Amino acid sequence: MPAPPLPSAKSIQVDTRGALILDEESPETRDSRGIYLPNYVEPVSHIAVDIGGSLAKVVFFTRSTEPPSSPSIAATRGSSQASHVSTPVSTSPPHHDFAPLSPHPSHPRVNGALTPAVLEHNGHHGPTISGLSTLDHSAFRDNLLRRVSVQHLPGGSLNFERFETEHIDECVEFLQALIERSAELNGVPIEDMRKGVKIMATGGGAHKFYEMFQSKLQVEVRREDEMECLIEGLKFITLIPHEVYYFSDELIHEVSHQTACSNRPSILSVNGTNREYERPSPNPPRYAVSFEANPTPQLPCLLVNIGSGVSIIRVDEDGSFERVSGTSLGGGTLWGLLSLLTPATTFDGELFSSFVVEKGDNASVDMLVGDIYGQDYSKLGLKSTMIASSFGKVFKKDGKKVKFSAEDISRSLLYAVSNNIGQIAYMNAEKYNLERIYFGGCFIRGHAATISTLSYAIRFWSKGTKRALFLRHEGFLGSIGAWIKNIGEEEIEEV
Amino acid sequence: MPAPPLPSAKSIQVDTRGALILDEESPETRDSRGIYLPNYVEPVSHIAVDIGGSLAKVVFFTRSTEPPSSPSIAATRGSSQASHVSTPVSTSPPHHDFAPLSPHPSHPRVNGALTPAVLEHNGHHGPTISGLSTLDHSAFRDNLLRRVSVQHLPGGSLNFERFETEHIDECVEFLQALIERSAELNGVPIEDMRKGVKIMATGGGAHKFYEMFQSKLQVEVRREDEMECLIEGLKFITLIPHEVYYFSDELIHEVSHQTACSNRPSILSVNGTNREYERPSPNPPRYAVSFEANPTPQLPCLLVNIGSGVSIIRVDEDGSFERVSGTSLGGGTLWGLLSLLTPATTFDGELFSSFVVEKGDNASVDMLVGDIYGQDYSKLGLKSTMIASSFGKVFKKDGKKVKFSAEDISRSLLYAVSNNIGQIAYMNAEKYNLERIYFGGCFIRGHAATISTLSYAIRFWSKGTKRALFLRHEGFLGSIGAWIKNIGEEEIEEV
Repeated sequence: MPAPPLPSAKSIQVDTRGALILDEESPETRDSRGIYLPNYVEPVSHIAVDIGGSLAKVVFFTRSTEPPSSPSIAATRGSSQASHVSTPVSTSPPHHDFAPLSPHPSHPRVNGALTPAVLEHNGHHGPTISGLSTLDHSAFRDNLLRRVSVQHLPGGSLNFERFETEHIDECVEFLQALIERSAELNGVPIEDMRKGVKIMATGGGAHKFYEMFQSKLQVEVRREDEMECLIEGLKFITLIPHEVYYFSDELIHEVSHQTACSNRPSILSVNGTNREYERPSPNPPRYAVSFEANPTPQLPCLLVNIGSGVSIIRVDEDGSFERVSGTSLGGGTLWGLLSLLTPATTFDGELFSSFVVEKGDNASVDMLVGDIYGQDYSKLGLKSTMIASSFGKVFKKDGKKVKFSAEDISRSLLYAVSNNIGQIAYMNAEKYNLERIYFGGCFIRGHAATISTLSYAIRFWSKGTKRALFLRHEGFLGSIGAWIKNIGEEEIEEV
Repeated sequence: MPAPPLPSAKSIQVDTRGALILDEESPETRDSRGIYLPNYVEPVSHIAVDIGGSLAKVVFFTRSTEPPSSPSIAATRGSSQASHVSTPVSTSPPHHDFAPLSPHPSHPRVNGALTPAVLEHNGHHGPTISGLSTLDHSAFRDNLLRRVSVQHLPGGSLNFERFETEHIDECVEFLQALIERSAELNGVPIEDMRKGVKIMATGGGAHKFYEMFQSKLQVEVRREDEMECLIEGLKFITLIPHEVYYFSDELIHEVSHQTACSNRPSILSVNGTNREYERPSPNPPRYAVSFEANPTPQLPCLLVNIGSGVSIIRVDEDGSFERVSGTSLGGGTLWGLLSLLTPATTFDGELFSSFVVEKGDNASVDMLVGDIYGQDYSKLGLKSTMIASSFGKVFKKDGKKVKFSAEDISRSLLYAVSNNIGQIAYMNAEKYNLERIYFGGCFIRGHAATISTLSYAIRFWSKGTKRALFLRHEGFLGSIGAWIKNIGEEEIEEV
């Protein structure tokens, strides 16, 4: 039998026309919402895993011949209320009950399962491939972004799951079950399914756990470069409507008009009024959130990926990139110090968020400019509410131990880590003359306090000339990239 | 009586020929060693006070007609052993027994006392003023720096004292006693002495405590701009022989030859060998210390002043300056977090130093590159021993509280804060194209671990092109500057 005329790997694109970000099942899965791709019809069998220092992030595609039962249009459009991103996100383990895998039990052979190409060649043919994949890349992209009508061809969903790296066994068990269930749903022996499935592993753990994944899952495991995957993931995800968000300029304008006038000129002056970007202490204003409904290509940009540590990557217009900087003061530092300084329960998801956002007052532990000067240091443009020294009020030389509240400590730590990342990010954006600064990684967790602090820091240091951009699937850039990089690969190998 | 032909304030210089840094009385006063100025003969009555967020630093000049009894030549030349700077520095309060004020009780009317010009005009004339003060500034400086012979004209000593800002009363009491004792030694009524003495106050507390100083001491108090004083202090102190020190290139060369070869090119390559600057984890090499025996003017440079918070100041060749950056993660953060995380005794001077330098292993709390990758991430030039996430090993999602040692926590925190300051300092030095990076402020405290981490960070980020420079009187830049700025002022006013 002659090989079918398959398109080359390079020209195969994921059809994102009509892509819908699914409604979250619970606040805990805010950043793990599936993305429904109604027009994507390629067979995809590979699973991408990005194993970081603290979390392992999994991305896989499952077929569904109909749109999902409850894609919340409201959810995909976002909201202009700050409360939308302040939704607390628990760090409890993801659900492993496979509910998202099988939303339509009436289509057991296709829905909710991995669909390896090898099965198609063996008589399990899915819908015919549309001609879209041969289109020019950028023309295709521009075209699909502007299309309004959505053809309801059989599609499927990108699924997202998180696991702790420390309990990587849970991740392996999940993948094992996913493969077994896919074999069952497709009605093929598990051995055939294993031959068709590949794990695309990235992140530091891709090296550390390579052999373990291979031996336990009995499928092919391939390693992908971490930075390449982050950038591929960023390029893909920023084209999904309502994925990218930022704090609106309008509210920043309002906020800045409430503050005392400053002698520091702002570039974003309106009607000749100089305005100032306050630092987030002690009570940051709540910014409105704007979602990008009509995404355009976002290169060049700076990607600041905040996981346990922080990587800062410069991405050029042509997609080439370099890890130009980083800092060890990242999510691991925040959660590590919080776990040492506060009761365990206070930093777990919802409680942390409510503590930090609503109750904490960093001014009880941080030394502010006003504490030292008794006033603004206006000659230097330092307001009295600015943090001069994080935790600067804590140390008492006489050895007296003062008790500080967990809420205040949480807020101070969050500010310290977020401000520092924002500052280093800004300096790199300035050095490489980049306007867009994307923040990704699991550190952000949709917390309003984190997002507002990072946004503030960028606006403060750039005097309003640069913007902090955020992503709903902030923690999944690497795994999305590992997934997208290998789209089309398997068809070639099956020839 | 016609006014004597006094030189203008601008041309009066402190004569630093033959300046000797006195031997420390104890390790606790390592950075408070007096500086003997054998050729300086001007009457000086003012006392400079730099009141920061945590510490108040006092500088004053006392006459002595002979060199001090035991200026240790060895101490002024420094040592090439790392142990010299690792001398532990206690944070206990300074001695208030006035021993340093009166080393020569046989000369009670001159030695160890403030000598206001007003007393000279009233018949208490000191030695005649030499013609040096009318010389051109830079020619004078160049000249005195090259002179070897030291004329033992009557001179005096700059004295240094530290107090906690929280206990500012102790500082006021010290100054009160100093003024009273000076009146007694000079044989004048206390009222006359008060008229002749001025307090030059700088730092944030100069504003906060202005009225308190004035009312309690009943002397004139003047406020001086903090940044101006820091820069004036830096310009003066860097001209004192054996004051400036740095880690020697020679040992860095040796150290780098011990490390595995890297694919990251180093500018300081020798014989074509590419070398790499390791980050300080988990066991930093001990660098040898080089002291600058023949100082030259050090402008332009970057000054990184690390007190409770951090100020980063660009100084141009002409002495003009700008506070270009800073970070709230400074000494207050280190000591504040240490006091929350460790028993009080562990961070007090000697104990902290021995813990951090000798016993601590940050690898038990920090997540290293090797912990994530199981190896180097050599494509990015990240060695397995590099810190990927400070405190990244601490957080356990299951809520288990693991006990970490105070030593390991101390070391991790010191690395986190020092590395971060070094990184931000480097980025600013790069931005403004400055080769010399001076680190000042009380954070450093002569701790070898701090100094080596800052040196490392600068060498790592600059790939060996920039150098971290340190000062023996690191914490007194602001007070020295406030003192030097007002030299000559009083003579003019007395006319």
